[in-house]
Amino acid sequence: MISLADLQRQIEQGELSADEALAQSLAAIEAQEKRIGAFVHRAAKPRAQACGPLRGIAVGIKDIIDTADMPTEMGAALYRGHRPRADASVVMLLKQPGATIVGKTTTTAFAANDPTATLNPHNLEHTPGGSSSGSAAAVAAGMIPLALGTQTGGSVIRPASFCGVAAIKPSYRLLPTVGVKCFSWTLDTLGLFGAGVEDVARGLSAMTGRPELLAQPMTAPKIGVVTQDFAGPADKEGACALKNAAAAAEKAGASVRELKLPALIADAWRIHTIIQQFEAHQAFAWEYRENYEAMPPLLRKRLDESRDIAAADYDEARSVVEKARVVLCHTFGEVDVILALSAPGAAPRGLDWTGDPRFNRLWTLMGTPCVNVPAHIAEGNLPVGVQLIADYGNDAKALAAARFLEEALRA
Amino acid sequence: MISLADLQRQIEQGELSADEALAQSLAAIEAQEKRIGAFVHRAAKPRAQACGPLRGIAVGIKDIIDTADMPTEMGAALYRGHRPRADASVVMLLKQPGATIVGKTTTTAFAANDPTATLNPHNLEHTPGGSSSGSAAAVAAGMIPLALGTQTGGSVIRPASFCGVAAIKPSYRLLPTVGVKCFSWTLDTLGLFGAGVEDVARGLSAMTGRPELLAQPMTAPKIGVVTQDFAGPADKEGACALKNAAAAAEKAGASVRELKLPALIADAWRIHTIIQQFEAHQAFAWEYRENYEAMPPLLRKRLDESRDIAAADYDEARSVVEKARVVLCHTFGEVDVILALSAPGAAPRGLDWTGDPRFNRLWTLMGTPCVNVPAHIAEGNLPVGVQLIADYGNDAKALAAARFLEEALRA
Repeated sequence: MISLADLQRQIEQGELSADEALAQSLAAIEAQEKRIGAFVHRAAKPRAQACGPLRGIAVGIKDIIDTADMPTEMGAALYRGHRPRADASVVMLLKQPGATIVGKTTTTAFAANDPTATLNPHNLEHTPGGSSSGSAAAVAAGMIPLALGTQTGGSVIRPASFCGVAAIKPSYRLLPTVGVKCFSWTLDTLGLFGAGVEDVARGLSAMTGRPELLAQPMTAPKIGVVTQDFAGPADKEGACALKNAAAAAEKAGASVRELKLPALIADAWRIHTIIQQFEAHQAFAWEYRENYEAMPPLLRKRLDESRDIAAADYDEARSVVEKARVVLCHTFGEVDVILALSAPGAAPRGLDWTGDPRFNRLWTLMGTPCVNVPAHIAEGNLPVGVQLIADYGNDAKALAAARFLEEALRA
Repeated sequence: MISLADLQRQIEQGELSADEALAQSLAAIEAQEKRIGAFVHRAAKPRAQACGPLRGIAVGIKDIIDTADMPTEMGAALYRGHRPRADASVVMLLKQPGATIVGKTTTTAFAANDPTATLNPHNLEHTPGGSSSGSAAAVAAGMIPLALGTQTGGSVIRPASFCGVAAIKPSYRLLPTVGVKCFSWTLDTLGLFGAGVEDVARGLSAMTGRPELLAQPMTAPKIGVVTQDFAGPADKEGACALKNAAAAAEKAGASVRELKLPALIADAWRIHTIIQQFEAHQAFAWEYRENYEAMPPLLRKRLDESRDIAAADYDEARSVVEKARVVLCHTFGEVDVILALSAPGAAPRGLDWTGDPRFNRLWTLMGTPCVNVPAHIAEGNLPVGVQLIADYGNDAKALAAARFLEEALRA
């Protein structure tokens, strides 16, 4: 994989020009893209910028994120050839510190269920996960050092886990969703993929102008392990990844204990779907009501099945969320971070299904920062990741704890 | 003015067909539009729908709200001829219960400061207010019974006050902003204009499927009068409107007392601009950074002046907001609703300036529902309105209290 941090260091020390850094990525795309299929569109003549901390950094943008100079097709026939007028805010947040947008990455249709043809670089028989399939796969295949995705259920952390890359789903609203196709406006969260945790930290710091995100790895963090039983059991390989991570952390000096979350949190997990689908019916109203036949079939089916959510049910669900957030905030008084699985296990075989977001939904709903760290290689060379979760707004802590764990797992 | 409630009753009772109701509006537009200039685009062949509670209801849509079958030009040269792929969610929320979109209404450029040529129907020498200028003016001129606007500072309630119409800025996020050009994503709120309070209540209820919004006028509400001294004094005509409204409410059986808001609330009022401008720099990043020369001059100047807001200042401002919301919530334990001015006074003369949003900012920031009720006619036949404000999520109460006041002022 291409490390953003390494490129930055080489460019800063004059060992590499921004043009050369960019050329590395373009050559890697030439070499890998045919095998993986991570891009739907590539920039005609990408050029490195002369300044900014992200100069020379090639970035892939999930294709539900507006770009003014490339099509934005949402992975859906309905938007074929669609060309937005403006760049999304996050695209500008990348361009301003010097990044070069090299292409649009594949997305399940409207970042929902209908999969892409993108392959998992670790095992071409398996899905890379979704919905941010192309962004995870492009980083994992060593094509680019940074890519943007979005998460409404588990669409950043899960593909990162399946593809063995680092990723952060930051606190809700840290990155603006302006110019991003909406699925569910209280859940949709932008996220970053990179080779390692420092790489995504550097990317996010440059985008947001927040130097605190570059904090060094934590020492001796207090870690609460959450098994998320309310969401069902992990696979055997998943359980192994969580055990690995906890053991490595403990060995490296963390205090690690199992943490039972209050019952209200499980209630919140259960109502994620009510909120997501109630909002989706409004977000996709034009597509679903006026273009029913052209809708991607799996998303359409989900919308068919959730037509009857009443406003009162939605209000009740929102009120559960508010309460659960307060409870979770108290929980973070006991530990620095929560350690949980990023997915129930390794990437499923085949491309029909991008895997189960059941271990991600709660954290998207809570708006807490989550960082994926690869923790285990399962049978078939398939990575399995864990996520470090900090309290809302404490992205720096989530990143610092993830860097601690990443080092611990390397030791 | 055309009353939505009256049209609905006539249609339901078979006295009027949906086609005839729509034709009334189309004829009124023909008669008035040349004088007022409320529309930037009119639907080619608007047709009434056969069913739904809003059948026959002609609606105007502020031109920062996406429409698939009409241009959406944001009041800005940069978006001339722009044609979105999809309807915004709120446009679909109107079409689904039967409304007919008859045109796009004028907006200050990007719903910010640069004014339109729209005239105030009560006095053509004066501004109708902004940024939702055309929507307020079209309803006030009796062209249409319902129009959509947006408010980031005071862009719904202020033009409603200046134009002498009812309007609601609902609780934050009650109406989705999906497909609406963003100014500031934690503030932008959709709103409705109508002839009277019952009219906007019926419109909002049909859009959201929330029958509780049709509640009857309150009896004997507990009203706290807030003068918003932290935002500066009212004009003479403004003071008169507030006094009128308080006196009429008291006479009609309300308990009315002056309410001093805690100091933290004034702090929140002061930091509205930090939040708005920090987010605006990201929301308009493409326009401002890549199209500086084509930017509307007044908005560009505001962005020039607010380039240096640090992420830490923004975070601090957000934290003030969170605390102020809790304090305000306690305040609503003492009264049913707050009564405050919708603007410092009547509409300013001329079209250079759409008026001062200083009496609106706090309530947009707090996310509370606000309903404008005309309360006074100032010199020059210029209306001045007051707003009834309820606690977050209690839009039904704000509407019921506004209906009480509206009746009290008629008595």
